[in-house]
Amino acid sequence: MEKVLIFGHKNPDTDTITSAIAYAELKKALGVNAEAIRLGEINDETQFALDQFKIAAPRLVTAVAAEASHVILVDHNERQQSADDIADVTVTEVIDHHRIANFETSDPIYYRAEPVGCTATILNKLYKEHGVAIKPEIAGLMLSAIVSDSLLFKSPTCTEEDIVAARELAEIAGVDANVYGLNMLKAGADLSKKSITELISLDAKEFSMGAHKVEIAQVNTVDTAEVLLRQAELEEQINTIILEKELDLFVFLVTDILTNNSVALVLGQQAPLVEQAYGIEATNHLVYLEGVVSRKKQVVPILTDTAVSSK
Amino acid sequence: MEKVLIFGHKNPDTDTITSAIAYAELKKALGVNAEAIRLGEINDETQFALDQFKIAAPRLVTAVAAEASHVILVDHNERQQSADDIADVTVTEVIDHHRIANFETSDPIYYRAEPVGCTATILNKLYKEHGVAIKPEIAGLMLSAIVSDSLLFKSPTCTEEDIVAARELAEIAGVDANVYGLNMLKAGADLSKKSITELISLDAKEFSMGAHKVEIAQVNTVDTAEVLLRQAELEEQINTIILEKELDLFVFLVTDILTNNSVALVLGQQAPLVEQAYGIEATNHLVYLEGVVSRKKQVVPILTDTAVSSK
Repeated sequence: MEKVLIFGHKNPDTDTITSAIAYAELKKALGVNAEAIRLGEINDETQFALDQFKIAAPRLVTAVAAEASHVILVDHNERQQSADDIADVTVTEVIDHHRIANFETSDPIYYRAEPVGCTATILNKLYKEHGVAIKPEIAGLMLSAIVSDSLLFKSPTCTEEDIVAARELAEIAGVDANVYGLNMLKAGADLSKKSITELISLDAKEFSMGAHKVEIAQVNTVDTAEVLLRQAELEEQINTIILEKELDLFVFLVTDILTNNSVALVLGQQAPLVEQAYGIEATNHLVYLEGVVSRKKQVVPILTDTAVSSK
Repeated sequence: MEKVLIFGHKNPDTDTITSAIAYAELKKALGVNAEAIRLGEINDETQFALDQFKIAAPRLVTAVAAEASHVILVDHNERQQSADDIADVTVTEVIDHHRIANFETSDPIYYRAEPVGCTATILNKLYKEHGVAIKPEIAGLMLSAIVSDSLLFKSPTCTEEDIVAARELAEIAGVDANVYGLNMLKAGADLSKKSITELISLDAKEFSMGAHKVEIAQVNTVDTAEVLLRQAELEEQINTIILEKELDLFVFLVTDILTNNSVALVLGQQAPLVEQAYGIEATNHLVYLEGVVSRKKQVVPILTDTAVSSK
């Protein structure tokens, strides 16, 4: 049987990595020759989760068409976030919880998106729909994904369904969601040893908004000031990236996981879009965003709407 | 509670109309203020099904934004097949079984597409997932949709899941699927009283294929020759439509529901695309397509691939 590769987005986060693993497990239980792979480096938070539940990281693959003709996407659909050669393979399924954009097929496919906080919450349903039991270590990874995407249930993206799923998964995994969850988040929020390049690329995603090309990177921290001490270096490198990628806007979000506020470092020709979107003037390229923790729900839609309506 | 409108594509067929009705029933059972509407005229086949199960046709609405800010799409996603003012409302859900194209959201949504033969087959699952019983008359409409889309289980789009769902729905509705189904198909296949305009617009859909704008219309018949007797008139009118809509290609498929073959009348500057796609030369603008009954599975993908690769 030909192999199907399952993968999440570039700059993988915990939901992307663990969802590829968990869905490959389900597909294998259903008799499919599936393999989870990844498109980029494992971050510290995800490594903490993999170590905790003793699961090896998926294999790094960047040219997917060399290995398979059929692939399944988890935790993303937009082609610029996917494998570089995604146009050369057939996407047979998508399991996702993001907006749908820059995605097109020539044939009907299985597409399962739900407006919940985490792909793992949808996968928890799929396991039930197929009557397959979740192994404890896989449940632990799925719990990690929900904790990560919901910032321990505090993000506005977190739904009742995510909380219920996390409770079920914690029970199967045999861990306390809150104790384990905070330890995992802290493991990912230690930025002190990160280079400037690492900080900027750790969790960066590119978006088309109206006619604009926008990149939004986000880091979680327990000490915003520590990150902003390096603002000059960050700006220098981000401005280089803007030139290289011909971006109209780069937003670097520094999110405090204890206070649930963010500071956005905003650069590029379209920087005024951010000021306009939130009605807040930037000071020294910084915009303080109280209560903003979710790129997906509190940044991308408002910037897209502002970009489209200001066309 | 604000009303949510549920509708299928323009030039509605049986699956589009009955899926809007069936999903609105489910949403109402779940406490949502939902109303099924339609974007165009009811065809003879659909009317036969509505009469049989004593359900009124949904209300005709063409400007949806005047009535609701949130809508649910069934049986389609491509914007050119949807309400003209679809850009002015927020799509909160899509339940569909077609390819995904020309569809984009700024927020996460519920998107449920499966590569099955009929939207009703997916709705049958959703009723079960929510633990809601299907009323006999609604089951009858859902069965009608499966019979229609699968040409009584003979189309290559028909999956095992469609057959199982049809069996369950026939049981609930208290009808014999094969006897009722053939009567319904015949009611829709009587083209003798149709005007040329009606024939062309009965089940026409527009597609973007590579750089080309393509319209594909389909009629079912038990007498292909009867339709082709009017070829000169058909060509005249189709050529007018090509000019008006600036189409690159118009394919008029005449499908024999007894033999399961089709004849395609092919007009427009890109007519050679069809010859190239099937490796068959047109004779007097006609291409004989043996065993081809499904626009979605046997026409759209191969034409799209040919259009894209010949760019």
